[in-house]
Amino acid sequence: MKLYSYFRSSASYRVRIALNLKGLSYEYAAVHLLRGGGEQFAPEYRRVGPDCIVPALVDGDITLQQSLAIIEYLEETHPHPPLLPSTPADRAYVRAIALQVACEIHPLNNLRVLKYLKHELSVSDDAKDAWYQHWVRNGFDVLESMLADDPRTGKFVFGDTPTMADLALIPQVFNAQRFQVDMQPYPTIQRIYDEAMQHDAFMRAAPGQQPDAE
Amino acid sequence: MKLYSYFRSSASYRVRIALNLKGLSYEYAAVHLLRGGGEQFAPEYRRVGPDCIVPALVDGDITLQQSLAIIEYLEETHPHPPLLPSTPADRAYVRAIALQVACEIHPLNNLRVLKYLKHELSVSDDAKDAWYQHWVRNGFDVLESMLADDPRTGKFVFGDTPTMADLALIPQVFNAQRFQVDMQPYPTIQRIYDEAMQHDAFMRAAPGQQPDAE
Repeated sequence: MKLYSYFRSSASYRVRIALNLKGLSYEYAAVHLLRGGGEQFAPEYRRVGPDCIVPALVDGDITLQQSLAIIEYLEETHPHPPLLPSTPADRAYVRAIALQVACEIHPLNNLRVLKYLKHELSVSDDAKDAWYQHWVRNGFDVLESMLADDPRTGKFVFGDTPTMADLALIPQVFNAQRFQVDMQPYPTIQRIYDEAMQHDAFMRAAPGQQPDAE
Repeated sequence: MKLYSYFRSSASYRVRIALNLKGLSYEYAAVHLLRGGGEQFAPEYRRVGPDCIVPALVDGDITLQQSLAIIEYLEETHPHPPLLPSTPADRAYVRAIALQVACEIHPLNNLRVLKYLKHELSVSDDAKDAWYQHWVRNGFDVLESMLADDPRTGKFVFGDTPTMADLALIPQVFNAQRFQVDMQPYPTIQRIYDEAMQHDAFMRAAPGQQPDAE
């Protein structure tokens, strides 16, 4: 398999964790999201990722896009260890937590949105940082209240082993810390993050461990 | 089943289509996203939807959130007719198209984001409309090029019957038209939308057909 990735991309980070947890080796193809206006817009990348977004995963003659769709594919083709629980209700819960990050927090804070705020709306750096922190806090407020109250919460989001929910949550926490979001109000999220940071599959997937890390 | 929904919410619209396609009857619980600052923030709704987002689906003693997680749940518990293809690669493709809408377009244009632009960033109405149209066009440019070129495209996104991808795409087109996005550059998307509009399950799920329609 070949993963098109950028070390700081949190969607790429999700897939890197999944590949590591499944014990799948892969070739790392770096796509620099800033250099030369962004290598994701280059014709060579568009052939792999017509959405101009990382990650993309190539598995033989199959090319896959969108991190959560890629993770579902890996789950279906390499079911062990499972990244989703066994009952439909629990699977829906884990997917909902993952989507809470992937639909409600991350899309508002990725590079192209921050660029639009700055260049098209002339938003100041302070107001841009406030925007970033607002959507993280908004999402983490919800997640913390859900995770703190739910009996399914264990060392990880669902029980004591990682699921798709952790694959989405951990990179978001990493980014939140990078952008100085105060994690004090989120002890459950912080505890899960600290747990994950001791886990080999998460450690090896971290931005600083990638070949294109700066 | 009981669906907490708002007629104009496109995430609710996705689930309404899924329920109709699966032939499942449900009670409609209207949650007005504007009235009194938004009924989704009221304590009564928080007990069902702690994320303060519609839709939520209650199935017996199970409460579900996040439209795509709800649709996966319905697919697992009521597999016929299927809303996902049969091979992992095709399933990943359909999920990627759905996520392309759900992660790359919709989150940037929902009510709370438009409110933030207006009230926190003092963005003019014109600039707010330009923002809205920018993200729709950005996403539709990608989707049109993918769908126009892919041999899997039929009357619907994948072949001649609706899948999860259409459940995400059709409400987004509805919204795009409402916000005067020029659909001329998107003939494939428009053709799929026109096809869906003749389909009973999609027609009955449309905002104008809901009990809380204004």
